[in-house]
Amino acid sequence: MKSDLDALMKARNLDALLVLGDAENNPPMYYFVGGGHVSDALLIKKVGKEPALFYNDMERDEAAKSGLKTYSYNSYGTIEDFLAQADSNMLKAVALRRQKILEDHGLSGGRIAVYGKTDFSMNFGVTMHLMKSMPGVEFVGEYGTDSVIQRAMETKDDVEVAHIRQMGAVTTTVVKMVQNYLTSCNVREDEILLKEDGNPLTIGDVKEKIGLWLAERGAVDVEGVIFSIGHDAGVPHSTGDPKDLMTLGKTIVFDIFPAEQGGGYFYDFTRTWSLGYATPEAQALYDQVKEVYDQVVEDLDLNANFADYQRMTCEYFESKGHKTPLNTKGPLEGYVHSLGHGVGLNIHERPSARIADEHMHNILKPGVIITIEPGLYYPEKGMGVRIEDTYWVRPDGKMEMLAEYPYEFVLPMKKWKKE
Amino acid sequence: MKSDLDALMKARNLDALLVLGDAENNPPMYYFVGGGHVSDALLIKKVGKEPALFYNDMERDEAAKSGLKTYSYNSYGTIEDFLAQADSNMLKAVALRRQKILEDHGLSGGRIAVYGKTDFSMNFGVTMHLMKSMPGVEFVGEYGTDSVIQRAMETKDDVEVAHIRQMGAVTTTVVKMVQNYLTSCNVREDEILLKEDGNPLTIGDVKEKIGLWLAERGAVDVEGVIFSIGHDAGVPHSTGDPKDLMTLGKTIVFDIFPAEQGGGYFYDFTRTWSLGYATPEAQALYDQVKEVYDQVVEDLDLNANFADYQRMTCEYFESKGHKTPLNTKGPLEGYVHSLGHGVGLNIHERPSARIADEHMHNILKPGVIITIEPGLYYPEKGMGVRIEDTYWVRPDGKMEMLAEYPYEFVLPMKKWKKE
Repeated sequence: MKSDLDALMKARNLDALLVLGDAENNPPMYYFVGGGHVSDALLIKKVGKEPALFYNDMERDEAAKSGLKTYSYNSYGTIEDFLAQADSNMLKAVALRRQKILEDHGLSGGRIAVYGKTDFSMNFGVTMHLMKSMPGVEFVGEYGTDSVIQRAMETKDDVEVAHIRQMGAVTTTVVKMVQNYLTSCNVREDEILLKEDGNPLTIGDVKEKIGLWLAERGAVDVEGVIFSIGHDAGVPHSTGDPKDLMTLGKTIVFDIFPAEQGGGYFYDFTRTWSLGYATPEAQALYDQVKEVYDQVVEDLDLNANFADYQRMTCEYFESKGHKTPLNTKGPLEGYVHSLGHGVGLNIHERPSARIADEHMHNILKPGVIITIEPGLYYPEKGMGVRIEDTYWVRPDGKMEMLAEYPYEFVLPMKKWKKE
Repeated sequence: MKSDLDALMKARNLDALLVLGDAENNPPMYYFVGGGHVSDALLIKKVGKEPALFYNDMERDEAAKSGLKTYSYNSYGTIEDFLAQADSNMLKAVALRRQKILEDHGLSGGRIAVYGKTDFSMNFGVTMHLMKSMPGVEFVGEYGTDSVIQRAMETKDDVEVAHIRQMGAVTTTVVKMVQNYLTSCNVREDEILLKEDGNPLTIGDVKEKIGLWLAERGAVDVEGVIFSIGHDAGVPHSTGDPKDLMTLGKTIVFDIFPAEQGGGYFYDFTRTWSLGYATPEAQALYDQVKEVYDQVVEDLDLNANFADYQRMTCEYFESKGHKTPLNTKGPLEGYVHSLGHGVGLNIHERPSARIADEHMHNILKPGVIITIEPGLYYPEKGMGVRIEDTYWVRPDGKMEMLAEYPYEFVLPMKKWKKE
């Protein structure tokens, strides 16, 4: 939580955090500012102090909405002033302004960690200038899931849980709409689903509806929903070919992870469906995934090591004859990813279930929100299965699923029956 | 255009471009990859060579859709391998992998420019490691509008023009829907617009409709539409208070800049409306903005200096008694911004009309797509006006507006008449 920041900063001997970029679609800045149309901003969080936000004049009202202490960039001089001092070198002009702001806030020296999902080229160039002009400052880059900010973000307060829960409600509402739509379709003789106008229904058509139904509910499919069938369902992050036709009896992986409009909190959810009927091979895969899912969820313990459940999942799948990251380097089929991850302002954040990340203290402590998402993938056999829900580790130590949804695999078609 | 890249790179003595991050919502990567669910990728463009894309295995199919030469990260070793060599330091592990990829592509030395709208903290940390381990390489950061990539992006090919034109058609369709909706509303005695259910219509209600109508057309309001009334209309980048009520006789600034879903091309467009009637002061402001808009558009010349038109606009507004960036440092009222900017994969890109950017060769050369957007702002008087269209400088030297829309200021209300 934000209240952990000072202790986390002290433990790393950081004097300040410097966050760069827009307030929207930029998790570290959103975390402090809460979104809004504040672009190319700068935020300083000194240890033990409240954060300060620096903005462009045209966005003064938007900046003020943050409730933070705000300062106009122009109060330090216009960019034209700095350009004149910088021989018309924009990188240097921005560096001069940034230096003036840092010095004015008592940061002529010390360790300053830098953050922001923002223009790397410009900020790298500016920081190289600052490293020369401010030799007393050490600028520190951190690895995402190991960073001070993501360590604070890892545990959510009640307001954050409410945001994620609300996205969960939106997500499952839209999933239900998709299920109802698909199962109501007419089916052609060759087992292809048809639209109202008699043309075959494509993945692209379904995705368009998903985007629309999310937008109607204030959510955005920022990173691109995964709705894939057959071979593509067998490749975990294939988003699906928009021209693929919707067909009975093939696995459909529907992984939906919308965020609040403007770059807010995410939810993460997956179901695998087979329309009308399932092949025995696909049913067997589904049953294995569901079995390990249930076992993991039942066994989740407060303050347990998240990677232990990844290990447990690998061992289960290996006992069924599949490749996993535990017995194969970079497997391309079988169980090919990790069991889950934290969800918040980033779709993937701390804690990680990866065994390779085990040294990074990925613990199911109170306030953590994680996905549990085992899967099995056989692209050459044209099938893949994943089941995913998002769980909150409550302060009382209970695990709470933030949005419930049934686990049907075969979805009966309303206007079609297997002969 | 992309075909200019090699010449631009040679002129700056760059051996390669290194682009980092996702393919979506990351203009430099989108420029090469064309979007899709390719996350945490890496792209190398060597001078005189075709670009190469490096991807995570789970996204191999998405990477292949780019049509580029692609390489799996894992073909250089898994991240676990690199972690073992890096004492479990993730920044160092990523740096080792990046070094191996660069060396494998003949980049053990030379000047490499870095790009990407991506995680600054991680990439800064990784690059600091690389600067130590690859002393023969100079990593170069560039200022956005002065960068090699944005200099290539500045002129658009026919496919890019078609994308932007299509977003223009979507934009004006949605603007017309908003106009029709507003002018059809019932009006309360105190001149407040009412919704179908009899409750007052708010800015938030209108924005919700805008988001939805854009989504229905495959467009996303990535950066947050500006729809603001009264005081907020007087602050150019105030997006508007969602709780503000829609009222007759106040200036409404409607600045809409949607992009193709997934982070594609933008369009940029503004109209200012006053519902039912206008105050004489607002009408006078509007007339001045429209007059200078018309004059600028008439005078646009092939290969002219964009800043000359900013100067012309300032001089016109100054002759009417307003503050401008030419007679005032950082004005907060009057004409407070610049006349326009390039539009493409970035909502603001080259060329710039700012006088401060004049040294950066902002020329209306063939293939450039720009906005023309004069405005006047008086927040204390509760009003602001801006008119904006997007123009293409055609290869034949003609200026073509990419989406036409009328310039009505006062919108007559269908169910209300001024007594």
